[in-house]
Amino acid sequence: MSIEQEVEILRKIPLFANIEPAKLKLMCFASERITFKKGQSLCEQGDIGDAAYIIIEGTADVIVTNEGPLVVAQLGKNDILGEIAILVDIPRTATVTATSELTALKITKDLFFQMVTDFPEMGVEIMRVLAQRLLATTADLMKARAGAGN
Amino acid sequence: MSIEQEVEILRKIPLFANIEPAKLKLMCFASERITFKKGQSLCEQGDIGDAAYIIIEGTADVIVTNEGPLVVAQLGKNDILGEIAILVDIPRTATVTATSELTALKITKDLFFQMVTDFPEMGVEIMRVLAQRLLATTADLMKARAGAGN
Repeated sequence: MSIEQEVEILRKIPLFANIEPAKLKLMCFASERITFKKGQSLCEQGDIGDAAYIIIEGTADVIVTNEGPLVVAQLGKNDILGEIAILVDIPRTATVTATSELTALKITKDLFFQMVTDFPEMGVEIMRVLAQRLLATTADLMKARAGAGN
Repeated sequence: MSIEQEVEILRKIPLFANIEPAKLKLMCFASERITFKKGQSLCEQGDIGDAAYIIIEGTADVIVTNEGPLVVAQLGKNDILGEIAILVDIPRTATVTATSELTALKITKDLFFQMVTDFPEMGVEIMRVLAQRLLATTADLMKARAGAGN
């Protein structure tokens, strides 16, 4: 896959939608492409998170193993995973296992911080996406509590 | 109150805890101090949010008026309000009314974006705080849903 095609994939991710293509190109140049076989894990619940992954091709299950393995979400092309663990030093909250051959762009913590430092507008965009998710999750929480009669 | 005292107040807010005092001093110089009388509102639910406020002295109620006015939180010294509305263009989700004479530092949207552009490490700190709040809210949502038997 060409760098141009990878840049197009990044632009479809809300986190990067408003970032100039030239800056995304730099990110593609500096990041690693990793291929996983079906059944291989991109990350394991409990591990320390040092990178985020963007799926370029393939599918994966998000599995939480608190009370036996439970598939809580399915991921595919253009999905990003592990971006919170880059910002907050917590162990991975789920295991992600490829359910087909899968290619991902690995964005290390160092690359991530270098990009947001060199291009603050990328940081602003990430803040916006996090704020939107926080608003949506807070609204869901209010609904869940109202439904439970709390 | 001196600029030094204001900087000390900003440093007690998680959003600014790891920012160098010299940069917080710049923020204090560039921001406006506003005094509200008891009963006056800092912002009204439904308004467009163009600034965040940091309470320097005094107390306030956070009031949601969806089904009659309901006080959902109380704010005091060192609390910040309205920071999400700076990042996301949504109307204010609550009314905040002073319950005593109140002095606040007004951080406009323009000042906020200038600060995170000039000092990307401030942006990184804000991303971290948002990511932590997102994790905590997601955990609360999981608990609420489990409690409701969903």
